[in-house]
Amino acid sequence: MDYKTLLDERDLPERWYNIVPDLPVPLPPVIHPGTHQPIGPDDLAPLFPMGLIAQEVSTDQYVPIPEEVREALKLWRPTPMYRAHRLEKALDTPAHIFYKYEGVSPAGSHKTNTAVAQAYYNKQEGVKRIATETGAGQWGSALAFACQLFGIELKVYMVNVSYQQKPYRRQMMELWGAQVVASPSTDTQAGKNILAADPDSPGSLGIAISEAVEDAASSETTKYALGSVLNHVLMHQTVIGQEAQLQMERLDAYPDVVIGCVGGGSSFAGLAFPFIKERLEGKAIEFIAVEPEAAPSITRGTYTYDFGDTGELTPLVKMFTLGHTFVPAPIHAGGLRYHGMAPLISLLAEQGIIEARAVHQRPVFEAAVLFARTEGIIPAPEPAHAVRVAIDEALKCKESGETKNILFLLCGHGHFDMAAYDSYLTGKLEDYAYPAEAVKSALAGVPQIA
Amino acid sequence: MDYKTLLDERDLPERWYNIVPDLPVPLPPVIHPGTHQPIGPDDLAPLFPMGLIAQEVSTDQYVPIPEEVREALKLWRPTPMYRAHRLEKALDTPAHIFYKYEGVSPAGSHKTNTAVAQAYYNKQEGVKRIATETGAGQWGSALAFACQLFGIELKVYMVNVSYQQKPYRRQMMELWGAQVVASPSTDTQAGKNILAADPDSPGSLGIAISEAVEDAASSETTKYALGSVLNHVLMHQTVIGQEAQLQMERLDAYPDVVIGCVGGGSSFAGLAFPFIKERLEGKAIEFIAVEPEAAPSITRGTYTYDFGDTGELTPLVKMFTLGHTFVPAPIHAGGLRYHGMAPLISLLAEQGIIEARAVHQRPVFEAAVLFARTEGIIPAPEPAHAVRVAIDEALKCKESGETKNILFLLCGHGHFDMAAYDSYLTGKLEDYAYPAEAVKSALAGVPQIA
Repeated sequence: MDYKTLLDERDLPERWYNIVPDLPVPLPPVIHPGTHQPIGPDDLAPLFPMGLIAQEVSTDQYVPIPEEVREALKLWRPTPMYRAHRLEKALDTPAHIFYKYEGVSPAGSHKTNTAVAQAYYNKQEGVKRIATETGAGQWGSALAFACQLFGIELKVYMVNVSYQQKPYRRQMMELWGAQVVASPSTDTQAGKNILAADPDSPGSLGIAISEAVEDAASSETTKYALGSVLNHVLMHQTVIGQEAQLQMERLDAYPDVVIGCVGGGSSFAGLAFPFIKERLEGKAIEFIAVEPEAAPSITRGTYTYDFGDTGELTPLVKMFTLGHTFVPAPIHAGGLRYHGMAPLISLLAEQGIIEARAVHQRPVFEAAVLFARTEGIIPAPEPAHAVRVAIDEALKCKESGETKNILFLLCGHGHFDMAAYDSYLTGKLEDYAYPAEAVKSALAGVPQIA
Repeated sequence: MDYKTLLDERDLPERWYNIVPDLPVPLPPVIHPGTHQPIGPDDLAPLFPMGLIAQEVSTDQYVPIPEEVREALKLWRPTPMYRAHRLEKALDTPAHIFYKYEGVSPAGSHKTNTAVAQAYYNKQEGVKRIATETGAGQWGSALAFACQLFGIELKVYMVNVSYQQKPYRRQMMELWGAQVVASPSTDTQAGKNILAADPDSPGSLGIAISEAVEDAASSETTKYALGSVLNHVLMHQTVIGQEAQLQMERLDAYPDVVIGCVGGGSSFAGLAFPFIKERLEGKAIEFIAVEPEAAPSITRGTYTYDFGDTGELTPLVKMFTLGHTFVPAPIHAGGLRYHGMAPLISLLAEQGIIEARAVHQRPVFEAAVLFARTEGIIPAPEPAHAVRVAIDEALKCKESGETKNILFLLCGHGHFDMAAYDSYLTGKLEDYAYPAEAVKSALAGVPQIA
């Protein structure tokens, strides 16, 4: 029996796939919060190098991956594709379950794919220092590794509650040479303002973004970097889906359903976009984006213009949002606790090309435990959402007798999330009811764009 | 440039290599501590299934790997071989550095290789439950995973100080269904005796072994399992070296030096033994077993009969030992804190086939940090000892201008050891002087065998 489908380094994709020119309708422009006019590359120049801005607005279907980025990716790519024989057996399903595994990267998730690309383009333009934010630490550690490779200084504003709870992720960033501070910090005006109002603030991703943006905007030699949501970040992740296409081809098993979790949307996009291209060309594939019930932006939010951050420092983007002031419940999947959704994912969901499904964390951990006990790999809480829905789909096949090919993305391992498993196994894990009133109130604060 | 050499599942070895018949001199018998007579298979029957006892005393050069074990191994094997291009560049060395990486297994180290084999043979003979000990948790988590796969109950006696300091490893064992207690515990007489004398005992591997052995010996349906030292355990690890031979062959790069860390000796044996066979057949290869200065059994110990455990419950084996009552300093490489050494490794060292080298933990972590910053993978503290010596050998090549092929074993990742890195990076890591007096005193307590 074959469990893994491995690719050779020469199979590493040579270009990223940009879905923008293939969209069924044009992507609504990003607009300035003051003027409500579309913003241009120059508006982004204080924060990003031109190489990345060019990708953000690119309408080319493919963008070549620079050789130095490919050399960095080869440290862990191509990543393996697994057939979940033991999980299938445990479920007694006729479905075939495949998963692409991104946990083999140095930082343990797909985030490293865009981190090395972003570090490279910054390095190319002489950037000496980057400022960024991180929640649970997946993005911060991926960028720390990438900045170490390319010789760039990094400062990470880490959400205070995670800084306290996840010392290992902080230590990982420091091992790779990054400076890490708890956010809110006294290093920025934004941080000081919050601390003045609440000296014990646990912080939030919205606050940390404000600190990192302020840091970058106030220095000539510092830029800002974001780990999801933006077009260029999603594009960098398409190496995942391109490899998966090749692997499924070699297995002679075309996927009927493609599943991934969504917070900002970059891992899902990475796997799905190359397959969505085939769907747009006529192939029958279903796509399921799995979000947490605690932050169900696609299933319960509104498709409208909103800020990307709580502090209203970013431009306005059209997306599914729960309102930029909405603060999701403290579920263990920190990477999915976001009020909005990537504009590209949002448009595809609005167009009915992607289906969204929201799940509670207890059934998510139930699925993750079964997965770890059969397949061995311990999923991070975020991709455990995809595991849940992959299992649900496989159980539907058991009912119907269909032999579907189910493909999902296991975008990272859970080695730094064992406390969450402990919480589940000892019966302490809570589900959170959908916070209808909080979302209603937050959505009332979304800017009204004509 | 090629970074990884991957093998297909059909390249997974079909048999284990048993070095016993190829030894230049016969392995001294294991003897009974009371009678001083060689022990036989029946003496081991209360603790181990006959399938494993047969392997322990086997003189066959090769032993077939059962198909069910191969199917379990395929969940993560064959493991990758890497060429450390970025480390070589950082060192500016003409040497070529290769490493075989065992951190891709579910539990994150080579221990899983023997765990699935041991669980299989126990299952074959109807064993319902296994008792074992674990120090830092590598072995306990590997066996927990294996017992989960084969449907066997597992109880792990975890050294109390690690139980307190490494909750993640405990949680990992529990995720895979094992019962974990801090040792000394009140569940055994051995544990109660220790607690009566010292209610706050931090525990030790010696005590935990006594508890697990007592547990197994006092139940008809429970057996005991050990993660290193024994012949059959070392043999199970030879899948590593057999794969490495094939990978080096494909790279057309024969190793000049083979390096691994040694605590009990199983990971080193796994990589080295198949290459030692070639050395015994005439090929020129050096072997370096790296041990910590805090527990330098080969470099500073005596080759003599001694107990495998502190509590004098095991048979006597001829090995390099620091004395079974010697307690090594609390270095972070918990897996190397052992007073003895596998009899097979000991004999090969005595015969001059293996060279041993002892290193302090600060230079070890210095090497591990450089490795993590260039190659991405974060080494566990144990294989970081091998990284140190691989770098030392590469620097010698820089001096001499030689282009040697250096192969070392990276037997596990350090995702659960970030606190040790933090300690190093913040200047808090201590080196421990060789405890000459303590060793002298412990060696005085070694049994005198004619």
